[in-house]
Amino acid sequence: MNSHPSLWYNYLNPMRNTATLLIHCPDRKGLVAAIADFLYSHGANILHADEHQDSELGIFLMRVEWDLTDFSLDLREFEPSFDPIARRFRMEWRIRLSLSTPRIAIFASRQDHCLADLLYRHKSGELRCEIPLVISNHPDSQSLVDFHGIPFHLISVPQEGKEEAEKRQLGLLSDHRVDLVGLARYMQILSPDFVSEYPQRIINIHHSFLPAFLGAKPYHRAFERGVKLIGATSHYVTETLDNGPIIEQDVTRISHRDDVEDLIQKGRDLEKVVLSRAVRWHIENRILVYANKTVVFD
Amino acid sequence: MNSHPSLWYNYLNPMRNTATLLIHCPDRKGLVAAIADFLYSHGANILHADEHQDSELGIFLMRVEWDLTDFSLDLREFEPSFDPIARRFRMEWRIRLSLSTPRIAIFASRQDHCLADLLYRHKSGELRCEIPLVISNHPDSQSLVDFHGIPFHLISVPQEGKEEAEKRQLGLLSDHRVDLVGLARYMQILSPDFVSEYPQRIINIHHSFLPAFLGAKPYHRAFERGVKLIGATSHYVTETLDNGPIIEQDVTRISHRDDVEDLIQKGRDLEKVVLSRAVRWHIENRILVYANKTVVFD
Amino acid sequence: MNSHPSLWYNYLNPMRNTATLLIHCPDRKGLVAAIADFLYSHGANILHADEHQDSELGIFLMRVEWDLTDFSLDLREFEPSFDPIARRFRMEWRIRLSLSTPRIAIFASRQDHCLADLLYRHKSGELRCEIPLVISNHPDSQSLVDFHGIPFHLISVPQEGKEEAEKRQLGLLSDHRVDLVGLARYMQILSPDFVSEYPQRIINIHHSFLPAFLGAKPYHRAFERGVKLIGATSHYVTETLDNGPIIEQDVTRISHRDDVEDLIQKGRDLEKVVLSRAVRWHIENRILVYANKTVVFD
Amino acid sequence: MNSHPSLWYNYLNPMRNTATLLIHCPDRKGLVAAIADFLYSHGANILHADEHQDSELGIFLMRVEWDLTDFSLDLREFEPSFDPIARRFRMEWRIRLSLSTPRIAIFASRQDHCLADLLYRHKSGELRCEIPLVISNHPDSQSLVDFHGIPFHLISVPQEGKEEAEKRQLGLLSDHRVDLVGLARYMQILSPDFVSEYPQRIINIHHSFLPAFLGAKPYHRAFERGVKLIGATSHYVTETLDNGPIIEQDVTRISHRDDVEDLIQKGRDLEKVVLSRAVRWHIENRILVYANKTVVFD
Repeated sequence: MNSHPSLWYNYLNPMRNTATLLIHCPDRKGLVAAIADFLYSHGANILHADEHQDSELGIFLMRVEWDLTDFSLDLREFEPSFDPIARRFRMEWRIRLSLSTPRIAIFASRQDHCLADLLYRHKSGELRCEIPLVISNHPDSQSLVDFHGIPFHLISVPQEGKEEAEKRQLGLLSDHRVDLVGLARYMQILSPDFVSEYPQRIINIHHSFLPAFLGAKPYHRAFERGVKLIGATSHYVTETLDNGPIIEQDVTRISHRDDVEDLIQKGRDLEKVVLSRAVRWHIENRILVYANKTVVFD
Repeated sequence: MNSHPSLWYNYLNPMRNTATLLIHCPDRKGLVAAIADFLYSHGANILHADEHQDSELGIFLMRVEWDLTDFSLDLREFEPSFDPIARRFRMEWRIRLSLSTPRIAIFASRQDHCLADLLYRHKSGELRCEIPLVISNHPDSQSLVDFHGIPFHLISVPQEGKEEAEKRQLGLLSDHRVDLVGLARYMQILSPDFVSEYPQRIINIHHSFLPAFLGAKPYHRAFERGVKLIGATSHYVTETLDNGPIIEQDVTRISHRDDVEDLIQKGRDLEKVVLSRAVRWHIENRILVYANKTVVFD
Repeated sequence: MNSHPSLWYNYLNPMRNTATLLIHCPDRKGLVAAIADFLYSHGANILHADEHQDSELGIFLMRVEWDLTDFSLDLREFEPSFDPIARRFRMEWRIRLSLSTPRIAIFASRQDHCLADLLYRHKSGELRCEIPLVISNHPDSQSLVDFHGIPFHLISVPQEGKEEAEKRQLGLLSDHRVDLVGLARYMQILSPDFVSEYPQRIINIHHSFLPAFLGAKPYHRAFERGVKLIGATSHYVTETLDNGPIIEQDVTRISHRDDVEDLIQKGRDLEKVVLSRAVRWHIENRILVYANKTVVFD
Repeated sequence: MNSHPSLWYNYLNPMRNTATLLIHCPDRKGLVAAIADFLYSHGANILHADEHQDSELGIFLMRVEWDLTDFSLDLREFEPSFDPIARRFRMEWRIRLSLSTPRIAIFASRQDHCLADLLYRHKSGELRCEIPLVISNHPDSQSLVDFHGIPFHLISVPQEGKEEAEKRQLGLLSDHRVDLVGLARYMQILSPDFVSEYPQRIINIHHSFLPAFLGAKPYHRAFERGVKLIGATSHYVTETLDNGPIIEQDVTRISHRDDVEDLIQKGRDLEKVVLSRAVRWHIENRILVYANKTVVFD
């Protein structure tokens, strides 16, 4: 007897066998027709497509998902087959198959609410990915991670030993062929060198409505300023702190009855949903980055 | 000197010359390619497109908007040119040009908050339509309508004279070649005969979160039930009361400090935005109706 | 080395030693003065107080919380000391001490998202209560409950054996001196006899915005009706199904891109927060019930 | 025949004859008892009361509203009668009578959506105040203000003549015994001298979620930063730009389909509700200011 909760979930929502193509390029006539013809010529049944023109920057953006059941093109041949179109329109593109599960490493520190939330969503089948490891600079969440059957790596980050710690972290990421790093309230700032290894592949949760309250202790500063809503922001990490492309934001109402601890408490529920949405959208190949902004195709 | 507020608005946001095509039909491969090829062959520059497959019902839905600047097809020839594709895929479709402004009649009763809101949005340029007339069964809002320079028609609806009143209303709608009727808290129930004259072209605002509190006095019943949120719903009117396809809904939080009058007051702000969004989306050709539901393309 | 997460939480937010009094009674002049004088005469330092008059029903409602540090009245003497005032104003009242932790039993079935959420909030110190047991009619969540170190009782509920099952459940609740039952997506309907044993002490989460979609399969019916928001409702359980006093409600937006499974997925996040808020407010003695409605003092 | 819409509104919600007292002072035992005893001794029937202790700053905050029907104290005697209590507890306090309507001046510029909204809410009876004048530095909204029967004063503010313009404005405010100034998207920065004449009596609406995007063109900067929500903030004006005590904030979701003009359009609906709530709460004596923050008693 198997009591794994993801079973009933997958029963309800069986994994479809689809491919998703994300494209952006300079806008030009005939783009949609060229892509649609290419897909149709190989028997694709389009499930969803969304095209948008950023008229100010003259950029064309597209996400298209199709059923692979009758798709006649061997996916190993996709790149050479699609290349002439991509070159003609100077496209940047990537493709993702629903049946190939991305590999995500979670970084955590002492506070474990985002970690616990991601692990639960993974276990329940909502996040269709593998989590080959969790890296933390505190031992506190070891038992939680153990319970989920995921290897836990304790790498402390002393002030003088950050470079060494990052070397170990990068080694683990490489060993486990990690596609995405999720910073689940990880309280260390990653070096530019680390960040440059995973461009647009590190997602952080910041506990404020950016660009308000960049940097440290945002809830304390929100309390002092007397704002009426607190927020959380998930974003790709870039070399400039708290300045990467924003993926998702949300807010919740507070009142004079809330002290700083209440803000921290209420903020946790925000942080969980805002981070998990970003991770899920990344997994589902919904996010395009350009001009330091994201387009999230829904 | 012209002080009309719509001028600065239109200066900021000049009307683009575009066409929008809405389509739904049985799902089949090649649909997107066929439409994209057709448009490209006539020089269309696609600004936005959104395609979706309702996999349960096997229905394909699409909205596409393109720039008409270089479009080589005379729009009077659009229907015969597009007809072969439409027939091949058994499409239901309609087209709308951004420069042709739809004509909207507003029906009102005593409470004028939705009426005032629609008139302001029209004046400010947000609602790109003409409002050739307002029909009310109460004289109260005459001066407001006069201020906006719109003809006001008082048609009272006595219990014994409803048929006669509707005949006069329908006459006016016909005379003014009205495309859409907006019921701005109009407190009379339209007869099935009336409704059948304007299928999917009458939008009502109901002051509850449907299907909760169908029928009369929803705020009183919400208060009695002790709900924690009140809502408003805009929908197309069908022969069955409060059962037409829902276009938009929103809610707002209430507390034990709110009595029924507070609910009515808070509800007004909801009703205004929920009705005006529905009217704007209809004008912008964003709404598809099927299976008594709407798809609102954003 | 202690890795229990509640430690840093409690360090941030140490438990204050307070008492909370909840009162409702027929409205009469002098009520506030009588209560304030009584508390002041015993050295109470009032931290928060909130009084409200329901003018329609003529009912006075009050919540007052005070610091017990300098309170001179032995709390075992509170009832006899307060009784004369309570009788004079015909009050219904109850008192709760912040340092006495209520005992909560959680009932669950196969879907464990609400269960997991409550257990995490308990472990992290957000829910200041004891959870002496979890009762489920499915074995699936045993390992999750075990991980939290809480006794798990599997009591299946066959169609013919419901009475027997409830007898066992009631026995366990009694043995563990349970103050509150939280139904965390427990998929069995409790009998009126069961409910009458715990009046205003059973909290359920219903996965719709009540009173819309009472009964079974609310997400399926919401999908069919084409609503634009889905909701969740926590309420005290009464003998009439889904009709008890509503404690909390919330909603989230959906679109035509969401099928029923997406509604179920999005709804889970709603259910978790809406149930956990209700449980926390009950624990914090914030909820007054009258006229089949709740007042939630914030 | 009288068609003024406020009539049906007032019929539904007749003005109660109440007094509201707002107090803040250093926290001390016996405060609530002293105030409650004082009111009870004069026959007050308390309708609502809310007391709160800011434990960090050691400040006590209270709002109490009572029915004046049986209140035995002549209100001209309130101050001398209450003074001993106020001195004993070093209170800052103010009282407001529901039947005495405050006098509000609205300042506007070219964009008139907030102005139109406030005027409508005033006409419909929602804002229980008098509006003796509107001052604008643009002629555009003259006809709108005329329609509402309110005197319109055009005072242009040339770069070199700001001092002179403010002198004229202050003269008008003084002549009309104005209690509150509402800046309805007034696009001029008031001088410190002007502001010091009306401390905590000038309310501004800023079109961002402060403290994000202080200063000019917040929607443009929000667009550039790629935020996922836009906001609006109403606050009391102080000498430091956009830094006064925040009264209310709200946000709305945007997407990649929204260009700057869409942000401006969506922002208007936010600005209207966020400004009008602040004005109404001020009128209803719900707002206490301390430590550059507001407490809004609900």
